[in-house]
Amino acid sequence: MARVMYDFAAEPGNNELTVNEGEIITITNPDVGGGWLEGRNSKGERGLVPTDYVEILPSDGKDPFSCGNSVADQAFLDSLSASTAQANASAANSNNQVCLIGSGDPWSAWSASKSGNWESSDGWGAKPEGAGAQKNTPNNWDTAFGHPQAYQGPATGDDDDWDEDWDDPKSSSPYFKDSESAEAGGSQRGNSRAGASSMKLPLNKFPGFAKPGVEQYLLAKQLAKPKERIPIIVGDYGPMWVYPTSTFDCVVADPRKGSKMYGLKSYIEYQLTPTNTNRSVNHRYKHFDWLYERLLVKFGSAIPIPSLPDKQVTGRFEEEFIKMRMERLQAWVTRMCRHPVISESEVFQQFLNFRDEKEWKTGKRKAEKDELAGVMIFSTMEPEAPDLDLIEIEQKCDAVGKFTKAMDDGVKELLTVGQEHWKRCTGPLPKEYQKIGKALQSLATVFSSSGYQGETDLNDAITEAGKTYEEIASLVAEQPKKDLHFLMECNHEYKGFLGCFPDIIGTHKGAIEKVKESDKLVATSKITPQDKQNMAKRVSIMSYALQAEMNHFHSNRIYDYNSVIRLYLEQQVQFYETIAEKLRQALSRFPVM
Amino acid sequence: MARVMYDFAAEPGNNELTVNEGEIITITNPDVGGGWLEGRNSKGERGLVPTDYVEILPSDGKDPFSCGNSVADQAFLDSLSASTAQANASAANSNNQVCLIGSGDPWSAWSASKSGNWESSDGWGAKPEGAGAQKNTPNNWDTAFGHPQAYQGPATGDDDDWDEDWDDPKSSSPYFKDSESAEAGGSQRGNSRAGASSMKLPLNKFPGFAKPGVEQYLLAKQLAKPKERIPIIVGDYGPMWVYPTSTFDCVVADPRKGSKMYGLKSYIEYQLTPTNTNRSVNHRYKHFDWLYERLLVKFGSAIPIPSLPDKQVTGRFEEEFIKMRMERLQAWVTRMCRHPVISESEVFQQFLNFRDEKEWKTGKRKAEKDELAGVMIFSTMEPEAPDLDLIEIEQKCDAVGKFTKAMDDGVKELLTVGQEHWKRCTGPLPKEYQKIGKALQSLATVFSSSGYQGETDLNDAITEAGKTYEEIASLVAEQPKKDLHFLMECNHEYKGFLGCFPDIIGTHKGAIEKVKESDKLVATSKITPQDKQNMAKRVSIMSYALQAEMNHFHSNRIYDYNSVIRLYLEQQVQFYETIAEKLRQALSRFPVM
Repeated sequence: MARVMYDFAAEPGNNELTVNEGEIITITNPDVGGGWLEGRNSKGERGLVPTDYVEILPSDGKDPFSCGNSVADQAFLDSLSASTAQANASAANSNNQVCLIGSGDPWSAWSASKSGNWESSDGWGAKPEGAGAQKNTPNNWDTAFGHPQAYQGPATGDDDDWDEDWDDPKSSSPYFKDSESAEAGGSQRGNSRAGASSMKLPLNKFPGFAKPGVEQYLLAKQLAKPKERIPIIVGDYGPMWVYPTSTFDCVVADPRKGSKMYGLKSYIEYQLTPTNTNRSVNHRYKHFDWLYERLLVKFGSAIPIPSLPDKQVTGRFEEEFIKMRMERLQAWVTRMCRHPVISESEVFQQFLNFRDEKEWKTGKRKAEKDELAGVMIFSTMEPEAPDLDLIEIEQKCDAVGKFTKAMDDGVKELLTVGQEHWKRCTGPLPKEYQKIGKALQSLATVFSSSGYQGETDLNDAITEAGKTYEEIASLVAEQPKKDLHFLMECNHEYKGFLGCFPDIIGTHKGAIEKVKESDKLVATSKITPQDKQNMAKRVSIMSYALQAEMNHFHSNRIYDYNSVIRLYLEQQVQFYETIAEKLRQALSRFPVM
Repeated sequence: MARVMYDFAAEPGNNELTVNEGEIITITNPDVGGGWLEGRNSKGERGLVPTDYVEILPSDGKDPFSCGNSVADQAFLDSLSASTAQANASAANSNNQVCLIGSGDPWSAWSASKSGNWESSDGWGAKPEGAGAQKNTPNNWDTAFGHPQAYQGPATGDDDDWDEDWDDPKSSSPYFKDSESAEAGGSQRGNSRAGASSMKLPLNKFPGFAKPGVEQYLLAKQLAKPKERIPIIVGDYGPMWVYPTSTFDCVVADPRKGSKMYGLKSYIEYQLTPTNTNRSVNHRYKHFDWLYERLLVKFGSAIPIPSLPDKQVTGRFEEEFIKMRMERLQAWVTRMCRHPVISESEVFQQFLNFRDEKEWKTGKRKAEKDELAGVMIFSTMEPEAPDLDLIEIEQKCDAVGKFTKAMDDGVKELLTVGQEHWKRCTGPLPKEYQKIGKALQSLATVFSSSGYQGETDLNDAITEAGKTYEEIASLVAEQPKKDLHFLMECNHEYKGFLGCFPDIIGTHKGAIEKVKESDKLVATSKITPQDKQNMAKRVSIMSYALQAEMNHFHSNRIYDYNSVIRLYLEQQVQFYETIAEKLRQALSRFPVM
C-alpha cells in the first residue's frame, strides 16, 4: 500500500496511472526501475506512478516515521538523499536508528548518549552500524531557507529531476549499462520513505557497514597485507596524514541537459576537469552520488564525508537551481581534492580520470567490491609512532567529541542568524528603502507643482536623493549574494562535516570500550592474550587516524573561516562605503542656502 | 453616567473614589474643577474621579462617537487637544462636524467636497464654522509611533500630568488667579469626550468662530479703523507679508517641576528667553495652550497655526517625554517667531515679554476680548496692490488647495514610511546585528577550545569582528535619533500646517462663492451695490493675504526641507562611513595566510 503525496497526471499512452494526493494505492510492483512503481487504484486501474510521488505504507498502515517524531515534512524528507535508504538498511539490522533519521540530527544520539552510556547494555557490539545516520544532516540552510529563489518549499508535481536524474536501469546512459548501481541508487531513493520494509539493498556491497562492527577490525585474526597503505606521521601539530607532494583541484563546469529514452527523460551532465591532467570527464549527479556512497562506505569510519548538495529541483527555478547545485558540487569536489587520503584514493582518482566507458565500468565494479572499507579502513593505516595508552586515546576521543559538538552548535547558531539576516536583507529592508526613495520623489513632484520660483535645484536634489535610496534598495537586496552567501555556504559545508562526527566518535568509543573489557574477555577465555595485544595496538592506530583527521580538519577550518570571514568583512566594508559614497553624491546636489 | 476607561485607585483621605475599567458610574458633579468629577458607583459610594479616566455617556447610553466612525481609540482621543472641546463647540451650532473630528482627517471634508460642492445646498454660509476641525489633525507620528520610548500607547492610570498640568480654577498658580481660562482649558478638556453635551465653552470668547461666517467680514457695513495694520506688499515672488527688520527667536529651556495645592499637584514649568530681550519668562504648558488658542482664534482664518505637541504623559517615561515635549514646544515657538505677522502680534509679544503677574493678567484679558479675530482679521490687512478679479482669485485659491492637499499626501507618505523604518531600525535590525555579533563570538570561543596551535590570532579577530557587529547594532539603533528624527519632526510640523488648510481654503472658497452670488443678491435687494463692491474688494484682500501666506509658507518649506534632508543625508553618510570604518578595523585584525 502506498499513500499518494502529490497529484500525478498520467501521460497518455505511457502506461501511467493518474493519482491524486491523499489517495491510497496498492503496489503491484514496487520497483519497475527508473524511479517508477506499478500500482493499482481503488477502481482497479493499474499503471506506473513515480516512486517519489507516493509514500509506501508499512503493512500495519502506520506512518513510517511514527516513532514519536513528527518532522515528516516533505521538504525535509526530500532533503534526505539516497543515503537514507542506506541508513535504513543499517537500521534494519541494528536498533531503531530510523528514529534518528526522523529527528534529523545526528547529534541527538550523541547528546542522549552523553548522559547515558555510549554502549548499550550488552556492552559489546551493540553500536556497530550507526554510521548510516551521519548522512542525514537536515539541510536547514537548504530546506528552510537556502537560496529562496531556488528553493520555494517542496516541489509539488514538477520535481521531475528527481527521477529523471536517476535513470532507468535499462537505460542507454553512456556510462551505466549495468543495472546494479542504478538499483543501489535510484530505486532505493524511492523506497527510502517506506523505511526498511521494502529494502532491496544488496548488503554485501557494503562491507564494514553490514557486518557486526568495530570488533571486525579489532579482532581480525590476520589483517590482510593492505594493498593500500595510509601512512600517518607525527608533525609539529601532532599526528597527520601525509600530504601528496603535488595537489590538484577539479573544475566542475558546463552543466548540460542530456536526454535518454528517446528524449523522454532528461538529466544534467557536468564537465569535470582535474587541474593536474586538464582532461575532462563528464558526470551526472547520480555519478557524484555513487562516488559519495563509495567514499562513505570506504572512509566514513575515519574521515567525515559531507553529503552532496540536494538533488531536488523545482521546474520554475531550474536554472538557478542547476547553478547553485553546480556551485555546491564544485565545493564538494574541491573539498575531496584537498583531502590527502581521499584525493589519492583509487575510487576518487578513477572518478576523475577514467578514459572510456569500459575503464569507468571496470573501475566502478572494482570499487564496489573493495573489502577495505568500513572499520577495515583502519587496517590500512600505519602510524609511524609508538602505541598510545588507552587513557590518552580516550581523552583525545572525548576532546574531539566535545569540540565537534560545540562547533556544530556554533555553526548552527550562525546559520540560523544568517538565514534571518538573509531574509531581512532580501525582503523587508530593501522594500523599505524603496519606499523611502519613492516618498522623497513624490514629495519633490509635489514641490515642483507649487508654482513658487527658484526651487528647481532643491526639487531635483530631492528627486536624486529618492533615486539614490532606490539604488540603495537594490544594493541591500543584492549584497547577501556577495558576502553572506559565502559565509552561509562555508558554515553549511562545516555543518555537513560535523554531522559525520557522532558516528565517527561512536566507532572510536566503541573500540575503546571493547579494549577496556579485553581483560575480562581474556579471563573468560573469549579472546586470547594475543587478541588483547592486537586490540590495544589497533585502537591506538584508530586514535592516530582520528588525530590526523582532526588536524587536517582544524587546519582546513582555520583557513576556511579566516578566508570566508575576511571575504565577508571586505564585502561589507565595500557595501557600506558604496552606500556612503552614493549618499554623499546625493547630498552634493542640494543647494547651499 | 460615565464608563470608566482606566482603573483608578483612590488615594486615602483625598475624597477620591476607586473605580475599575469598564465600571459604569453616575456623575453627581461633572466638574468639580482641576480635571476631577464627582461620581457614585453602583454600591452608592461617592468620591472624586479624574475626568480623563471616564468616558461620559450620552443620555441614551450610546457611544458618543457613534456617527459611523469607530476610531474611538483612546490614544487617538487623547491626542485630540483642548481644541476638541472648541471644535465640539463649533459643531454644536453648525452641522455634524463631530464626525469629522472622529475621522481625524481635516482633509476628509476637503476630499468629500472636491467631488461635490464646497458649499452646502443653501449656497450661502452653511460652512462658516469648519475652522474648528483644523486643530484635530490626528497625530499619527505621535500616537501610532512617536518616540517609542516616550509614547507607549495610552497612559493607563498614570497620566497625572494631564490634570496636574491643568490646575484647579481656584489654584494659586502665579499667573492664573482668574478661573476663566482654566475653565476654557482644563475642564473642557475633560468633558471633550462627551461631545457637545456638557459644553461650558463661553462662545463669546471666540469672535469669528462662534459667529456666522465670512460674510461677517465681507458684508460688514463699516470696518472699524483697525488698530493693527497688517500690510501686504508685492515682491519678486508676488504678494508677501512685510518682514520685520530685526527678527528674534525664543529659547525654551530648563523644564522644572513646580507644585501647588501644598505639593499635592505638580506641573512642569519652562523657561522662555527671547533672543532680542534676553529676559526670561516662565510658562507652563497650559499657558502655551492658551496662546495657541488665542493665535488660532485671531489668525486661524488666514494663517495656519499648527497644534501644540500633545500633553499626554506616562509616568514611566516622564523625563524623556518632558524633553521631547520641550523640543516640540521649542520648534513651535521658533515657528511662531519666524512668522512676520504672528511674531509681531500683541498677544505673542505679550506672552514673551510680560514683566510681572499683573502685566500678564492685563494682557491676557485684553487678548481674550480682542474683536479683531476670526474672519475679521482680514479687515486689518492692507495690500498695496490693485484689486484682483474673481477668476484669478479663484484660480489662486484652487491652486493652494490642490498644492496643500498634494503636499499633505506626500508628507503623510513620508511619515508612514519613516515610522516603519524607525521601527525596523530600532527593533529587529539591531537585534539581528547583535545576534550576528554573538554568533561570531561564540564560534571564536569554540575555536579556542580546539587545542590546535596557532589559531589565537584568528580567534581574536573573529571575537573582535563579533564585537564590531554588536557595536553596529548600537549604531543602527541610535541612528534614527540622529537623522530620521529630524526628518520626521519636520514632516510632522508640516503635517500640522497642512491640516489647517482645509479650513483656511474653506473660508476663502466660501467668500468667493458669496461674491459670485452677489449679483443675484443685489437683484433681489438683499445687498446694496455698495455691499457688492465692498465684497469684491474684500475677497481680493483675502486673496492677497492667502498669497502672502503661501509665499511665506513656500519660502519656509524650501528652507526647511533643504535643511532637513541635507542633515539627514549628512548623518546617513557619516553613519555608513562609521560602519565601514569599524568593519575595516575588524578586517585588519585577521591574519594573512
